[in-house]
Formats: sequence, C-alpha cells, structure tokens
Amino acid sequence: MSPTLSSAIAEIVAVGRRLDARGLAPATTGNYSVRLDDGCIAVTVSGRHKGRLGQDDVTQIDLDGRALEEKPPSAEAALHAGIYRLYAEAQAVLHVHSVASITLTRLLPRGSDVVLEGYETLKVLPGVTTHDTRIVIPVFDNSQDMPALARAVEDRLATLQPTPSALLLRGHGVYAWGASVEEAERVVEALELLMSCEIEVLRVGRRS
Amino acid sequence: MSPTLSSAIAEIVAVGRRLDARGLAPATTGNYSVRLDDGCIAVTVSGRHKGRLGQDDVTQIDLDGRALEEKPPSAEAALHAGIYRLYAEAQAVLHVHSVASITLTRLLPRGSDVVLEGYETLKVLPGVTTHDTRIVIPVFDNSQDMPALARAVEDRLATLQPTPSALLLRGHGVYAWGASVEEAERVVEALELLMSCEIEVLRVGRRS
Amino acid sequence: MSPTLSSAIAEIVAVGRRLDARGLAPATTGNYSVRLDDGCIAVTVSGRHKGRLGQDDVTQIDLDGRALEEKPPSAEAALHAGIYRLYAEAQAVLHVHSVASITLTRLLPRGSDVVLEGYETLKVLPGVTTHDTRIVIPVFDNSQDMPALARAVEDRLATLQPTPSALLLRGHGVYAWGASVEEAERVVEALELLMSCEIEVLRVGRRS
Amino acid sequence: MSPTLSSAIAEIVAVGRRLDARGLAPATTGNYSVRLDDGCIAVTVSGRHKGRLGQDDVTQIDLDGRALEEKPPSAEAALHAGIYRLYAEAQAVLHVHSVASITLTRLLPRGSDVVLEGYETLKVLPGVTTHDTRIVIPVFDNSQDMPALARAVEDRLATLQPTPSALLLRGHGVYAWGASVEEAERVVEALELLMSCEIEVLRVGRRS
Repeated sequence: MSPTLSSAIAEIVAVGRRLDARGLAPATTGNYSVRLDDGCIAVTVSGRHKGRLGQDDVTQIDLDGRALEEKPPSAEAALHAGIYRLYAEAQAVLHVHSVASITLTRLLPRGSDVVLEGYETLKVLPGVTTHDTRIVIPVFDNSQDMPALARAVEDRLATLQPTPSALLLRGHGVYAWGASVEEAERVVEALELLMSCEIEVLRVGRRS
Repeated sequence: MSPTLSSAIAEIVAVGRRLDARGLAPATTGNYSVRLDDGCIAVTVSGRHKGRLGQDDVTQIDLDGRALEEKPPSAEAALHAGIYRLYAEAQAVLHVHSVASITLTRLLPRGSDVVLEGYETLKVLPGVTTHDTRIVIPVFDNSQDMPALARAVEDRLATLQPTPSALLLRGHGVYAWGASVEEAERVVEALELLMSCEIEVLRVGRRS
Repeated sequence: MSPTLSSAIAEIVAVGRRLDARGLAPATTGNYSVRLDDGCIAVTVSGRHKGRLGQDDVTQIDLDGRALEEKPPSAEAALHAGIYRLYAEAQAVLHVHSVASITLTRLLPRGSDVVLEGYETLKVLPGVTTHDTRIVIPVFDNSQDMPALARAVEDRLATLQPTPSALLLRGHGVYAWGASVEEAERVVEALELLMSCEIEVLRVGRRS
Repeated sequence: MSPTLSSAIAEIVAVGRRLDARGLAPATTGNYSVRLDDGCIAVTVSGRHKGRLGQDDVTQIDLDGRALEEKPPSAEAALHAGIYRLYAEAQAVLHVHSVASITLTRLLPRGSDVVLEGYETLKVLPGVTTHDTRIVIPVFDNSQDMPALARAVEDRLATLQPTPSALLLRGHGVYAWGASVEEAERVVEALELLMSCEIEVLRVGRRS
C-alpha cells in the first residue's frame, strides 16, 4: 500500500541518513522518491545533502515527471517517473553515486552491461532464488538530455525479461527500485557488495 | 552455559548491530544462531536486515534443523544445525557475506581452501598459539540444495584436525562458530582482517 | 553573508566532526577557515585533532595571513589567506589529507595536474553543469616555504579559467573552497569520490 | 606529568573506543599501556575486545614487565616495558593490528624496513618538520618468544637516530608511542594513512 506524503517524507529522510552512514551519499549526490497513495511521487529537492535532509527537502511530481510544487525536484525526476510508469509494482526508487558503480561502469567496454553470476548475494534481488544464475544490470550512457535519457531507459527496460531491479548510468551511479523503500535499499546494498567484488576480481583475475 | 531464549535473542540483536556497523550485514545477508539451555537452537528469521533486528526476528529450530515455530528460520538453518551436531562446544554460529570472503573464495582456483600462515592475528582463533602455523579454512562450493550442502559440510568437517572455527562457501560468505556469540564474532572479525590482507597480497605479490 | 566569529567557530567545529567521521581528519591533519563579517579570517589553531575541536581551537588572521590572536594559526594560514584574496566569493576553505588525494598526486608524473572527465559527480563542483567536460584540478609541488608556496599558488590560480574550486599539493592533500562551509565540504566529498574512482581506474585500466 | 591509575584507565578505555571506531581494533587484537605517576605501567588485560573495555580490563606491570596484579597483562607486556625503559619521554604505548601494517610488512622483502618519504603527513610524527625527509620505521620479524623479541627490539631501537616513534612487527602490526595517549594515537592514525598510501603506490607504481 502506498504511503501518505508525510510518511513518505519520513522514510526518505531516514533512508538518506542510512545511505550516508554507509558512504553512499557524498556531497549532494543521489536522489530518492516514493510513490504516494494519490498516485503522485514524492521526490527529493535538487541539490541537498542526502544525509541531512529535512522535512522541506522533499517535493512532489506527477507520473509524467512534472513539478507539482514550487520547490524544484531533482533534475533526474524524469527518470524516476519513467520507472514508476513502467513498473506498477515499483513503490520506491533510490539513486546513488558510489565508487563501485562509477568505477565498474567505466572499467567495462562501452556497450557492455554489468553481468553478475555465481554470487549468493544475488538472492537479495527480488525474484532471484539461486546463485547459479546470470543477472544483467543494464548500463546506459550518461546524458544531460534528461527527456532523451528517460526515453532510452524506458525503451530498453521495456524489452528486458526478467524485469530488472536496477540500472546503471555510466560514470554516474545506480538506480534501484522495489516494492518499498526498504526493498530498494536492499537492492542498493546488495549491488554495492557485488560490484565491489567484481572490481576486486577484475584487478586480480577470477579463477572460479 | 547455554542461555535462555530471551537472552539469546538479546545477544543476536546486539551482534547484528555490531556486524552491520562494521559493514558485515548489507541488505538481508547473513544469519545467526545460538544454542539454548533446552538443547534447541535460536536462529534468525529469513529475510530480515541483520542490523535492525527486533525481538520477533528470531525463531527456533531443533538439532535436526526442523522449525519449531511458525516464523520461518533462515534457509540455511540446516547448516547451523549440522555445526551444532558436530561440535558439542559450539554455542553460537554467525554467517556473514563480505567483500573479502566472497572475493577471496572466487580468486582461488576451484578446489582450493584458504590457507593462512604467518599472521599474528591467527592467534585470535581458538586453539591457535603462534603465528608460525598453517591454518586451513575449508572452502565448499555453494549450493541451493541445503540438505546436500549440509551433508557435504558435515562429512568433510568430521575429517579435519585440528577442529576448524570457520568455513567458507564459494562466492557466498563465511560461517564462524565458538563457545559464545562473542567468540564467534571474534573469529568473524579476525578472518575479515586476515582475508583482506590475503587479497592485498594476491594483488601485489608477497615477498615475506 | 559572512558570519560572526562565534558562528564561524560553531561551523568549523561541526565540519571537523563530519570530516573525521568520513575518515578525512586523521591525527592532527587538515586545517579549516571561514571569512568573517569584519573581513578577518577564522582559522583552526595549529596541531589540534580536527574531529575533536573545541571553542578555543580557532584563532584569527587578517587577509595577509598575519596572526591576530596569541593562539598560533595553522602553519598553512598563508595559503588560506591567499585564496581569500584571490577569490572574493570564497567564504570558506577546507584542507584535508586523504589516501585518495595523497596517492593520486604521487601516482601521476611530476608536473601533471589531475584531470577529471566524464563523471556525473563533477556537477557537484560550482559552475559545472555536465559530466561531458574536462575539469583540471591544479597540482602544486609541496613545500615548507609557505610564503613561496602561497605565491606560486596565487600566481598560477590567477591564470586559470574557469576558476577552480580546489587545488592539490603533491603528497600532501586537497584544498577546497566555496561560498559557504557546506559548499567547500561538498567539493571535498565530491573530489574524494572522484579521486578514489581515478585510482581504481589507474589500477585496472579504463575502457570507457 | 604521568597520570594516576584511575585516569590512565579512563584514557585507555576511551582510546580503545576511538581506535575500534576507525577499524583498528578487530576481535581481541591490540594492547595499550600508560606510564603511571608511581613509575608502574597500566596495561590492558589479555584477550579483551579493545572497543568494549571496562574498568576491570586494565592491570599493572612494573618496568621489567612483571605482573603486579592477579589479572594477567597482555602477552606482549614485555615489549611495552622495554619501550618505557628505553625512552624516558614515552608516556603511552599503543599496539594495533591493521590491514595496512600487516600487509605492508609482508609485501616488503624480509629484512627491509618501511621507509616513508615526501609525505606532508610525516610532520605528525614527533620531531619531523618537513615532508622532504626519509623516515625509517623499523620492521622486526615476529616471534612468540617474547623475552627474545623484546631484547631484539631494545637492542636495535637503542642504535637508531633519530629516535623513532613506532616500530612494526612483520605480519603482526604496529607499536606507536608518545608523550601522551593522544600523541601515540596520532602516530597510529598518521601511520595508517601513510602505510595505506604506500600500499596503493606499490600496486600502481609511483611516478613522483
């Protein structure tokens, strides 16, 4: 069940503190959103430190990404809206910049996705029941043309089966979503662990 | 002396917070158990965040790994039960996913165990009295067939002398046990340090 | 608007705690300053732990870097003063030692600056509006001759367009400045993330 | 001025919490001591977690390393006593196990010391006034024969000029000392930073 605006704000403030404590909210990076009971989207205001959000640092957009309040939403609100339009089950979207997501997407050849195989921690991702699988996290080239990027993301996501829980923007960071803020947060935490492992393995060379 | 259920729950909740603060409980990873004064086992419920456990997030199993309450135990409860059956002195078992344990087990050739030599910190492990030793942490291939995995683990552990304090599942994580939650936690912390050192050494090449 | 001395002290004490919590204030490293409403500069006293500053650990200098109180300012106060003279919009300067800034400046050939391209997080830096840019963070050779170093820094900074928000001293650390303590802190946090990514990429080799 | 036993205990408990918060006190590793006003030495009891010390976790030894209470001192008390005998100005000794100190001493060829050059952070070490220097941190082979190790340490330290503020045991960790617990702690923090930088540089190869 979708929350009211005031409980969505409380959840967004709290998850910002937890992500910052894990080193996943440096400077003003990241933006977070929650689908509301009236069908609108609560989303962080542009340019705030996500580890120190207050009540006023959340604004609202509609499902087309249009601002519903004077406070300007994150510049990437269109991406959040696109994910909510595409996936009815998505109730929360979290976007973070992290060393692992930025580095891994730049270490891979352009055009490559991140492919994760053989990790038990993959089972944290919704719908994954075994380590013996091959999970593709799609990687998109970063762009400042937000409508074009949102379209590219939606077009490609719509073709992917099984439904992913996350996507990566090259040199930028990760977007993760889920049926609640907590589920989206778990996806973020699991991918941080897994991408950190992948980078270690790229350095030394996997044997098994 | 084995604790009552209520003090076991308090210990499990507390160790989850400490492990999470050290970055050893991302997402819903890990599971923890304690042997009780009535011979049953208190074990974390499946799918909870171990850094934010509450009173209701612990359930009970018997020594054969069968659930004794409605709340479902961790899917890996059979492994916990097997360790308690094998080692009468084991009073607590902690399982965590970490970058070091996942990466190191994937950097080694399949079929290799982790071998730790020459580290003073090895003396944290029960029964180890010198750095000038060779400690084998057995590595098992990961599996979703929990009864089969538990059997493979028990069969091999039964052959190992001296008795190990920990085992590794490839691409999955570490299991550590001890005469108390605190002792098992010390094994987890010591192995994190030691496996992190081993990975650094694999990167650069040891000279001494 | 520039703050009074007492509110500048409160800001300096607080930012020291935050930077220390992020591992950016080991031992007595770093020094911080704020431009005051009377045109003087509040700056940390020499030799204190920046994570545990008290009210007495801040002193004052004038815009030429001369001490205005008995408490000795940081040995690097001349550098702070030079930055304030050069940039009227700079209201706060933060200097930290970190593994990333020290290592990256020593990994690069002498005479090289740090060049950051293609990172979304660059948009945290004042005036940067796209990842598709090339930001130069000037690197200076370290020196104990503070007047000479301050002169070298001022001479070169005066030639740089666009105006940088930070500089690096080789094997020493980063200086960052901004229109407030919070903005300077955001530059520090963003550069930590970006320089950590650059080091990872130097290790493995970038493909995109 | 040397403290009383009760204030030494308070300082030891507090520094354990700070070091643990920085990841420098995993499991039961490390031991800490303070020279008392009566010429005896307060030292941590063997086998306790240094991040969670209580009033009872400190005992006393004399300058020859002999236990003065029933509570057993750390097995390495002889090394602490040797440092106090050798350096009248040493008022506190801190020993920690860390990834950086363990790894770096094993990455270097046997017989090599750690040599640190060109780092501004070296100025944290007592007596160092410029980065343009060459600081030798002596490395000793680890041993379980504590009297022999203490003798080897004392014999070599007595020949070193200038007086070092720290030594390393290979595959074991760092000992640091100073005119107060805070000064010894600063040496620990500075060396952690510097050794972490050295390891990064060993990985990638220094250019300047």
